Amino acid sequence: MAKEKKVEQITDMETDFAQWYTDICRKAELVEYASVKGFTILRPYGYAIWENMQQIMDAEFKKTGHVNVAMPVLIPESLLKKEGELVNGFAPEVAWVTMGGSEELEERLAFRPTSETMFCDHWSQVLHSYRELPMLYNQWCSVIRWEKTTRPFLRSREFWWQEGHTIHETAEEAKAETEQQLNCYADFFENVLAIPVVRGRKTEKEKFAGAEATYTVECLMKDHKALQGATSHYFGDKFSRAYDVTFTGRDNKLQYPFQTSWGSTTRMIGAVIMAHGDNNGLVLPPKIAPVQVIIVPVAAHKPGVAEKAEELLQKVTSLGIRAKADFSDNSLGWKCAQYEMKGVPLRLELGPRDIENNSCVAVRRDNGEKTTVSLDELDTCIPELLEKVQKGLYDAARINLEQHIFPAQSIEEAKQLQEEHGGFIKTMWCGEEQCELEMKEKAGMSSRCIPFAQEHLGDVCACCGKPAKTMIYWGVAY
Amino acid sequence: MAKEKKVEQITDMETDFAQWYTDICRKAELVEYASVKGFTILRPYGYAIWENMQQIMDAEFKKTGHVNVAMPVLIPESLLKKEGELVNGFAPEVAWVTMGGSEELEERLAFRPTSETMFCDHWSQVLHSYRELPMLYNQWCSVIRWEKTTRPFLRSREFWWQEGHTIHETAEEAKAETEQQLNCYADFFENVLAIPVVRGRKTEKEKFAGAEATYTVECLMKDHKALQGATSHYFGDKFSRAYDVTFTGRDNKLQYPFQTSWGSTTRMIGAVIMAHGDNNGLVLPPKIAPVQVIIVPVAAHKPGVAEKAEELLQKVTSLGIRAKADFSDNSLGWKCAQYEMKGVPLRLELGPRDIENNSCVAVRRDNGEKTTVSLDELDTCIPELLEKVQKGLYDAARINLEQHIFPAQSIEEAKQLQEEHGGFIKTMWCGEEQCELEMKEKAGMSSRCIPFAQEHLGDVCACCGKPAKTMIYWGVAY
Repeated sequence: MAKEKKVEQITDMETDFAQWYTDICRKAELVEYASVKGFTILRPYGYAIWENMQQIMDAEFKKTGHVNVAMPVLIPESLLKKEGELVNGFAPEVAWVTMGGSEELEERLAFRPTSETMFCDHWSQVLHSYRELPMLYNQWCSVIRWEKTTRPFLRSREFWWQEGHTIHETAEEAKAETEQQLNCYADFFENVLAIPVVRGRKTEKEKFAGAEATYTVECLMKDHKALQGATSHYFGDKFSRAYDVTFTGRDNKLQYPFQTSWGSTTRMIGAVIMAHGDNNGLVLPPKIAPVQVIIVPVAAHKPGVAEKAEELLQKVTSLGIRAKADFSDNSLGWKCAQYEMKGVPLRLELGPRDIENNSCVAVRRDNGEKTTVSLDELDTCIPELLEKVQKGLYDAARINLEQHIFPAQSIEEAKQLQEEHGGFIKTMWCGEEQCELEMKEKAGMSSRCIPFAQEHLGDVCACCGKPAKTMIYWGVAY
Repeated sequence: MAKEKKVEQITDMETDFAQWYTDICRKAELVEYASVKGFTILRPYGYAIWENMQQIMDAEFKKTGHVNVAMPVLIPESLLKKEGELVNGFAPEVAWVTMGGSEELEERLAFRPTSETMFCDHWSQVLHSYRELPMLYNQWCSVIRWEKTTRPFLRSREFWWQEGHTIHETAEEAKAETEQQLNCYADFFENVLAIPVVRGRKTEKEKFAGAEATYTVECLMKDHKALQGATSHYFGDKFSRAYDVTFTGRDNKLQYPFQTSWGSTTRMIGAVIMAHGDNNGLVLPPKIAPVQVIIVPVAAHKPGVAEKAEELLQKVTSLGIRAKADFSDNSLGWKCAQYEMKGVPLRLELGPRDIENNSCVAVRRDNGEKTTVSLDELDTCIPELLEKVQKGLYDAARINLEQHIFPAQSIEEAKQLQEEHGGFIKTMWCGEEQCELEMKEKAGMSSRCIPFAQEHLGDVCACCGKPAKTMIYWGVAY
């Protein structure tokens, strides 16, 4: 028998959540560190998850008329600086190209941290008439932000994302786009990633540099810390004015279009790990799993087992399910541990006794539940079981979220609740940044969002006692 | 009636081929210049062509077991320099990042010109045993090469590509991979892009920096200049040794794997323009056309026309064909010119008289041929017509190639043939670089490849008169 590769142990999440997270990233072979400090490599298994995410999102974007483009990766400093707030927000994190070949460049070029400036510059050249509006663009690419501390998927100097950029004839249309794309993200998180979200608006302090309004989907991880899932921004005509993007309107006069942008990144893979993973490793929602069903033959050397397993693989694959069979000479125990580590949603075990009974045993990754499945009912049972895993993951994450939202009437209470339970703390708020700073300083929490689903928890701000304007969510965030 | 947008004229290809090419790039809205010198923007229509190319190629790569990954875009100078030939080949064209935020970096970082070094560095960390071989990786990304003169798609400081990188247990396997991937490119050019190719090996002078052997598919444009389509490289174990990539072999000893890489770029869009375009604009092979069928209603204001055109659109779309209908109030003439400019393979015209006859008129973009198609036979006729366009384009390009390959016995004859006819000049060759330099100097041609399909044209080298080793193709190349 061949030398068996050890399935490496990972740290328990209860012992050290951060180490557990990193262990999964490495041992499920999602990601590896690169030679360049703060940069990561997306390995085949991690990239396959990203490809599945991309495919689903891209189809959604296209359904609502968005088209893909590719903008240059380098932005001249002067172009980047035209809109003051944006450049102030990103300047400390920009990587600069200063040499091309052996020549010192006359003007240094920024590796894009985000591409609003390039899109505006392009639109200023190609937009003429209201008839060409809206322009609904998106691009898939990587960006660089020179972060000081990094963690795989969550914070990395280079990350992969999509950035949507659109311009519209009216403010109303642009606002509707911002909202539509936020809902698109929310649906993706809930229906595909099986992660329930809180939809809301960012405060002035937390909004995107240069935006008039930023909307967000916020989610909760298993350690009860918050994670910003994806954001959608409304810019009004601020960038249009700064970059001189104009069009001839219906009134035959020159006008400025109204703009949005919206983005989601490989950090969503981090969200999936921390929302669904357990002490045996990664747990993947079937909709994004590179391998949805793994077939493990039991006593594969016995006559007929390998053939029957191969037949099973063909049947399951013919249902449009991403399936694999492991015919290697590693032990059953090793194989089970290995595919649990990799988060494969469903394992089918097939041995001589199963074949006698014309069945196989299906084991769900999310809760370990075993079901005996007749080989004549694969076409209904396997898709059903995958749906159950998808729903099971969502329900568990929803319960985790629902049980970790706590109302508070003061900073002290908020602090105590956060320390005891984690999660989102909801309070009334006066709308002043001063109170956000105080909450941060005294309770260690940032504002996550002003939820669309408002509740009346009282009349005064939990921080300063002045009349409240809105209800707001606080949390300790990744 | 709304103000009609002018369909802009393009330069005739006979008058000025280079200007004709640039006109198509701009006026078919494939590409636009960016603010950064030498950089381009892939506009929605150009990017949609690239997406179609990507989808088809990616599926082919995956069929033979390749998986996608994402490597960091920045490479430390010290890492880039470990293999001398590679860095010497690319150093003059590298863009350097020297600052991160406000800090000067200790070591400057290269924007990847190609990623052999990153893949090797990664493999040196993750490869252990022969059981993990082969590793068949690919990535879709952009690279930068700081070119002095640039042209859309053909030579641009940033371009988009796929780069395949693989390592194998034996030299034979790596060589077979190099060949397999070259054939994959050749099939893609011929069956998808409708461009016939000459397959062969590059000379020592023209091969990829650091490669042991470079294979190429070479094609011929309408101006009878040559274009290198895509290349596939065999590295032996040279990089493995330089980057210390090792594995435990079947004999339990440490060994170096054998390596390949292979790449194709957005320059393929340039090849399509110059292989198929005409004086009315772009001509796209149906397999990569973002819009395969455009439906143009005639006298759309007359009762029933718009409804019938919409019905036609539904029917054609339901056949899995990418179709659009233009219900705008632009004139018929404008619409026809517009979709010719954009290279849409098939136009369906539908007016009141057609509706009476239960038919529409199909106009092929490649040769202008008109066919009356019964509305009851769309499901057979439309796919057939698209196949005819695909085949028609290939046949025309094949004839162009076949009629422009000329044998020559001397540099003088080669020069004269090139000046009179263009195309590929084939001669016998001794194998010495000196003769390549002489051919370049005296006849303005570089060696394109040593074709796999060899012919015996004589016994001596056309340049020096010494005994010939092989037959070789020369050309004036993009």
